[in-house]
Amino acid sequence: MLRGFIVRSPKLEVNILKHRVSSIGIAARFPHRKVAAMAASQAADVYHMGNETLRISRKTMHGSIRNRLVEALRPALSAKGIAPGFVLLQGGGPFNVYNTDGELIFKQESFMHYLFGVCEEDCYGAVDIRMGASFLFMPRLPEAYAVWMGSLKSTDEYKAMYAVDHVHYTDEMASVLAKHGAKEGAKPGPLHVMNGVNTDSGRPATPAQFEGADAFELDNSTTLFDTITACRVKKTPEEAACLRYANQVGSGGHVAMMRAAKPGMMEYQLESVFLHHCYFHGGCRITGYTPISASGPNGAILHYGHASAPNNRQTREGDMMLMDMGCEYYRYGSDITTSWPVSGKFTPQQATIYNGVLKAYQSVKATMKPGVSWPDMQTLAYRTILDQLVSAGLLSGPVDDLLNKDIGALFMPHGLGHMLGLDTHDVGGYLPGTPPRSQRPGYKSMRTARILEPDMVITLEPGCYFNPSLLLPAFEDPVKSPHLVRQAIEPFMSFGGVRLEDNILITETGCEVSFP
Amino acid sequence: MLRGFIVRSPKLEVNILKHRVSSIGIAARFPHRKVAAMAASQAADVYHMGNETLRISRKTMHGSIRNRLVEALRPALSAKGIAPGFVLLQGGGPFNVYNTDGELIFKQESFMHYLFGVCEEDCYGAVDIRMGASFLFMPRLPEAYAVWMGSLKSTDEYKAMYAVDHVHYTDEMASVLAKHGAKEGAKPGPLHVMNGVNTDSGRPATPAQFEGADAFELDNSTTLFDTITACRVKKTPEEAACLRYANQVGSGGHVAMMRAAKPGMMEYQLESVFLHHCYFHGGCRITGYTPISASGPNGAILHYGHASAPNNRQTREGDMMLMDMGCEYYRYGSDITTSWPVSGKFTPQQATIYNGVLKAYQSVKATMKPGVSWPDMQTLAYRTILDQLVSAGLLSGPVDDLLNKDIGALFMPHGLGHMLGLDTHDVGGYLPGTPPRSQRPGYKSMRTARILEPDMVITLEPGCYFNPSLLLPAFEDPVKSPHLVRQAIEPFMSFGGVRLEDNILITETGCEVSFP
Repeated sequence: MLRGFIVRSPKLEVNILKHRVSSIGIAARFPHRKVAAMAASQAADVYHMGNETLRISRKTMHGSIRNRLVEALRPALSAKGIAPGFVLLQGGGPFNVYNTDGELIFKQESFMHYLFGVCEEDCYGAVDIRMGASFLFMPRLPEAYAVWMGSLKSTDEYKAMYAVDHVHYTDEMASVLAKHGAKEGAKPGPLHVMNGVNTDSGRPATPAQFEGADAFELDNSTTLFDTITACRVKKTPEEAACLRYANQVGSGGHVAMMRAAKPGMMEYQLESVFLHHCYFHGGCRITGYTPISASGPNGAILHYGHASAPNNRQTREGDMMLMDMGCEYYRYGSDITTSWPVSGKFTPQQATIYNGVLKAYQSVKATMKPGVSWPDMQTLAYRTILDQLVSAGLLSGPVDDLLNKDIGALFMPHGLGHMLGLDTHDVGGYLPGTPPRSQRPGYKSMRTARILEPDMVITLEPGCYFNPSLLLPAFEDPVKSPHLVRQAIEPFMSFGGVRLEDNILITETGCEVSFP
Repeated sequence: MLRGFIVRSPKLEVNILKHRVSSIGIAARFPHRKVAAMAASQAADVYHMGNETLRISRKTMHGSIRNRLVEALRPALSAKGIAPGFVLLQGGGPFNVYNTDGELIFKQESFMHYLFGVCEEDCYGAVDIRMGASFLFMPRLPEAYAVWMGSLKSTDEYKAMYAVDHVHYTDEMASVLAKHGAKEGAKPGPLHVMNGVNTDSGRPATPAQFEGADAFELDNSTTLFDTITACRVKKTPEEAACLRYANQVGSGGHVAMMRAAKPGMMEYQLESVFLHHCYFHGGCRITGYTPISASGPNGAILHYGHASAPNNRQTREGDMMLMDMGCEYYRYGSDITTSWPVSGKFTPQQATIYNGVLKAYQSVKATMKPGVSWPDMQTLAYRTILDQLVSAGLLSGPVDDLLNKDIGALFMPHGLGHMLGLDTHDVGGYLPGTPPRSQRPGYKSMRTARILEPDMVITLEPGCYFNPSLLLPAFEDPVKSPHLVRQAIEPFMSFGGVRLEDNILITETGCEVSFP
């Protein structure tokens, strides 16, 4: 649809900006200010990085999240005949660099951040499920700590800062929990701790452990894990505001890269432009994932940019860039991919692939709404991209045959998108009771197979890549090779790829990219 | 000495640059190019981030390091009656973000990088102590990895890239080590693994572990750890070149901050300017430590900038800035602190403290050479700073009494400097046979008490801080308070602090800041 426009316009920036402004919503103003839930005050509980950055009232945000959790937990526990006690989470500790005294910048564990928004290391948080009261347990630090790390906050200061009902030291946990449990006339507990597996990593959550835990009844079922994970899938208005802000800042970072780009630059120089934009202008210190700044053939390497392929190629005239970068604000992230020619002008070859992916993006986006199955959208994206490749003479159809023979997965081996939130690959993709993971090529890499529901935030990221490690074997495959027009595909073998990725909020009736 | 000049000059940048150019050596040209050891070629073993960044021949650099190690190990093992076998190191694995599939950018374990310069995760390295042959063991990755992470390198490609004698997969370790051990007519091994404690963190090294290790004799003594640590203390010419390069890039980053600074900026915006300079212009993606961008009173918090005090104060007219930031190139880091008024012009109060610290810096630097005791330099720095505070009327002497009563540690509670290399607080500060840690205030925080030797690289970082958590109790201390001129000190209580930090190479006859 935009093809003619994109190919003709002399300035890349205009082309891409037109697409980005409409789809991601790079606003000249700061509409996040209008979000009622965001406090404009300088209250102690407000997270704010100064200037025009987003203000977040922890009281509003985490208070409503904790309410939502206890309201979901009460029936979930009751259904299993488990008594309600205390939710108990253990926060993260320092990221030590091996056995040295070096530490990477601390990043709070996501569930802990979700319930409490605490920036400090080595904390615990608890919520009384019956009464709703919230507890934070902070490490008791030696006085000397003040010289190295700053003045020691009192428990009252933490109480104001994190807007919880009670703050105590971690060495008081057992006695405080016992006392508050006993108040209700019952024996202490049970303490509901985290037991479950992250479906993207396959790794288990760590149940909270503390001195004196032996005295408590523990609920080691998956009830807390499943329930809190289900809560995280459907974003609150305040969470959506954080994601939208990270999205606006990250989108600005992509525009900054487009403006700075010229052939001959090192890939990492553009990454640096992105990071600087997000931190300097948006207060976003860290990213949720390692930035991918891929030029030319590197665009076909899905997780390019890691330490042994560190965005260190020099760009060349004629390269397509594939830039997958997002930023984090208050632990909520954006995950954005733009693809554009480093020289600022699409070649016909580049336009063919770009427009195929753009059509896939647009077709899926026009279809996304509650009730839609995400694997069906994977199929729709495949169909659209394959259709374009047939039109361009790279494949011979019919497209239904191509789909049946999984030829789409040769060009887009990854899933169409994933939940986005505190984690880049956010939790809840394969919760109990939701559709299981497929074993089919392409589909098996989907990070969720769920039916879309309101308040989910999911990335939409169709792509088309020319990956020799997939295509060369396919040329020899008797089932697939008859559909591959080898002499038409071969000129693309060092093309790299195109991916267009936005972050989508599912609404009651459809979806929004710049969710207001 | 520079005081008059510093106070009178209208432009901060000129003042600071004069100091920095002479002391750190910000060169207009690129003298690192002259280092003969640095290959100018594009050979497979060269590490290079493009453009004008430093080229490092892994063959030259790590080959000479491995030679140095085996030459030191042979007599060390012999003296203990331990047979020479294989040095065996286990490289680092991914930095997982809790149980998610998120990973922080991989950073190789320092000893592994020292011997092999390997960027990949989950490797092992071995050196045959008798023959000097080097072995790398790389993980055998599934074919599908290529789609996500890039084409799989063959063992021959790794051999060329890392310039080692043998490359095998990790699942071949036991058989390869056995075969090469057997060749010498002896039974395999022993395998010398890392056993020792990092004296900055207090944490033990992790001895290499692998499938099939049970079949080998293990040397679990501290011989390897102590010997390799001793080697790391004395830098090779190639290591010095890396440190010098990181220093040049980081120094440029400090100048960029000085140029960008104006009152009203957020502290983190200057951090962002630094990071962008180092990455964009120097190819330095990561830092060795969390940047400290401290304005006003935050300058007195020695490790300000961490996640719960994230450089998020807005600077104000009249603030002193204390900027402690360095960058890493090929895992070698710089560690640089500059202190300057955000408005560009020193107040008399600021000049007093700055010049005291500058005098301490200059006095120590003029004295540093082989044979000098580092604790004596701590005393010299204290003496110089205390002398300035007495002259300025903040303290009443005599200075010898102030020294005896540990009043220096009230104003500079940290050590004067630390070894610098692959780790910011580099290893070897308290090796067996070197002077032990003092228990005295100030001195007990020293990261080494050694006698200076040629080829050591050590930071020189005198500072003077007004830390209420140290000074307020001291006002009530019957021993210290008679020397504290309270009404003169009190106007400084929200001053923050000044630190000047450079990275110094000890030469045969003295020391050099911009070590050539």
